[in-house]
Amino acid sequence: MSVHPTAIVAPGAQLAPDIVVGAFTIVHDGVRIDAGGVVESHCVLGLPTPAAQGAPLVVGPDAHIRSHSVLYAGSSFGAGLRTGHHVTVREGNVAGDGLQIGSYGDFQGDTTFGEHVRSQSNVFIPKQTTIGSYVWLFPGATLTNDRLPPSEGPHRGPAIEDFCVVGASATVLPGVRVGAHAVIAAGSVVVADVAAGDLVAGVPARRRGPAADLRLPDGGGPAYPWTQRFARGYPPEVVGRWRAEL
Amino acid sequence: MSVHPTAIVAPGAQLAPDIVVGAFTIVHDGVRIDAGGVVESHCVLGLPTPAAQGAPLVVGPDAHIRSHSVLYAGSSFGAGLRTGHHVTVREGNVAGDGLQIGSYGDFQGDTTFGEHVRSQSNVFIPKQTTIGSYVWLFPGATLTNDRLPPSEGPHRGPAIEDFCVVGASATVLPGVRVGAHAVIAAGSVVVADVAAGDLVAGVPARRRGPAADLRLPDGGGPAYPWTQRFARGYPPEVVGRWRAEL
Amino acid sequence: MSVHPTAIVAPGAQLAPDIVVGAFTIVHDGVRIDAGGVVESHCVLGLPTPAAQGAPLVVGPDAHIRSHSVLYAGSSFGAGLRTGHHVTVREGNVAGDGLQIGSYGDFQGDTTFGEHVRSQSNVFIPKQTTIGSYVWLFPGATLTNDRLPPSEGPHRGPAIEDFCVVGASATVLPGVRVGAHAVIAAGSVVVADVAAGDLVAGVPARRRGPAADLRLPDGGGPAYPWTQRFARGYPPEVVGRWRAEL
Repeated sequence: MSVHPTAIVAPGAQLAPDIVVGAFTIVHDGVRIDAGGVVESHCVLGLPTPAAQGAPLVVGPDAHIRSHSVLYAGSSFGAGLRTGHHVTVREGNVAGDGLQIGSYGDFQGDTTFGEHVRSQSNVFIPKQTTIGSYVWLFPGATLTNDRLPPSEGPHRGPAIEDFCVVGASATVLPGVRVGAHAVIAAGSVVVADVAAGDLVAGVPARRRGPAADLRLPDGGGPAYPWTQRFARGYPPEVVGRWRAEL
Repeated sequence: MSVHPTAIVAPGAQLAPDIVVGAFTIVHDGVRIDAGGVVESHCVLGLPTPAAQGAPLVVGPDAHIRSHSVLYAGSSFGAGLRTGHHVTVREGNVAGDGLQIGSYGDFQGDTTFGEHVRSQSNVFIPKQTTIGSYVWLFPGATLTNDRLPPSEGPHRGPAIEDFCVVGASATVLPGVRVGAHAVIAAGSVVVADVAAGDLVAGVPARRRGPAADLRLPDGGGPAYPWTQRFARGYPPEVVGRWRAEL
Repeated sequence: MSVHPTAIVAPGAQLAPDIVVGAFTIVHDGVRIDAGGVVESHCVLGLPTPAAQGAPLVVGPDAHIRSHSVLYAGSSFGAGLRTGHHVTVREGNVAGDGLQIGSYGDFQGDTTFGEHVRSQSNVFIPKQTTIGSYVWLFPGATLTNDRLPPSEGPHRGPAIEDFCVVGASATVLPGVRVGAHAVIAAGSVVVADVAAGDLVAGVPARRRGPAADLRLPDGGGPAYPWTQRFARGYPPEVVGRWRAEL
């Protein structure tokens, strides 16, 4: 274990023997980080709150948490968590393997993430959201959960199904269901459900046809579903399953 | 007073006896924090600049300033200030009681806030803005203050009147007046004044009728003004006044 | 040299004798900061990665890097770099003199910047972007670089030519060329090339005429090109050149 001498690691933190902890980072009691994890400098991990209901922060193996990130108690992440810088993750998230959180990502909690979800910079995910597997969220994507704000709830974020692409600067309204393999164009404001495989664009977002109508340049064929042409960074067995299903 | 041994508190800071200051936080000379305040780790409070004109940072009682926040000298906040993480607040803000600043909030200064303003994550407020009381600003709301950028000014941000709701990802152009109890839908770009009580939506935002036309689900009646149905976290005397006025 | 005792400066960092380094800041090996530089607290400078290919972080004279900023190895900046707080700058940027990066700016790298580019808060610049000289990017401007996301590339961000104004909350799609002196209105989503000197607005952005049709208030004449009426903070010789060309 390589904990920088300026880091403050509580005695009740459970860090695997090979964990690296950077300077000026604070790790609270109860945090569990499995083997292979790297935590950069200036982070705060496992901040305890009543909302965490005593549950710890659990980080699976081979995580990389970049500097200035804040992860509260009460969430659990599978293997291979990657964060950018300056992220904020509140309580009650449950994520599968391979979650990527871009810099400035703000995940408010009580959200389930499938496997290998990749969100880029400055993505906002409110409470009570559901994100499937292999979903992409591009920079500035903002999900919302209160249709008549401010309200007591029940709040309900969007349900983004497997393989969806949420474009840069897109906004998705509360409770909207975005079907599997759908593509939301950059800058869209999505106010109604999106059917599986569809492309939507605009404010408000309207259907432009099947995403498969988008063509790769130079006669390369349909660009979607993207799983037939893009596989970088996914485990081979995952890609094999995709290709078998297509 | 519980100041973490790694925090750096200047001798001229005026902290009430029960203040808590987290690790790696810097408190500059002249900062005044009243009783009940909690300042989390990795913050910078009271950064002095010429723009502050010698005025200190003044934080009223019962504040909670979350980690990685930067508050300059030259602003004053009433009781119950709450900030998220990673906020940046420049000089010359004057705020009443109960201001909430969501994570990544970027308040550029020279702005007046009424009582109990609640801004959520990633809200941008430029200089020379006026925010009334009981206003809500949802994630990613961006106010602007320069109609012909770049210009020498005079810059003039929007004037957002009491009880307004500025939806997620909305943008409000310089000098726009948003009347009391108006509702700006998510993703709107507001280019002209909005009458009191109106709902606007779209790019550019157009009037959709009175916000009161929006109905609560299940026959619950009009959703706006929201003060007739939502009161969480406001002092009882404030809510009593609202209800008396309706 | 005034390095705060809590700062961690690697022995291989090359700091000019008068550099100021704030508390809790980390400066990695190989970083070069020329005379007159100020680095505030809680920063990370020169984080080495494979993508930096061994190139250091080079910061020209008279820089001011504000707190909580992260600048990786492998970029170089001319004189007078100014950053806000909480910025993130990845590898492979090359910038001329006078670059300003607003708070929360997220520059992903492999981007060239001309002289005196000014980006305000929360601007996102993806890899493979080209920014000319004297460009302005207003709060929340988001550039993108992948037209059919996710793809293996080649990724290509926009090319923003000299003197352009990218308005608040605007989104610019991949590969779009924005001609010199063009103005993109706030909240636009720019999906196609913009001719030099044009004004575009809306989602998708459409041509509204020459930007010169926008008039200053009170009969002040055309507002654009802005170089004829705004010069704050630019070196006199630069302004002289602008004026000679008009």
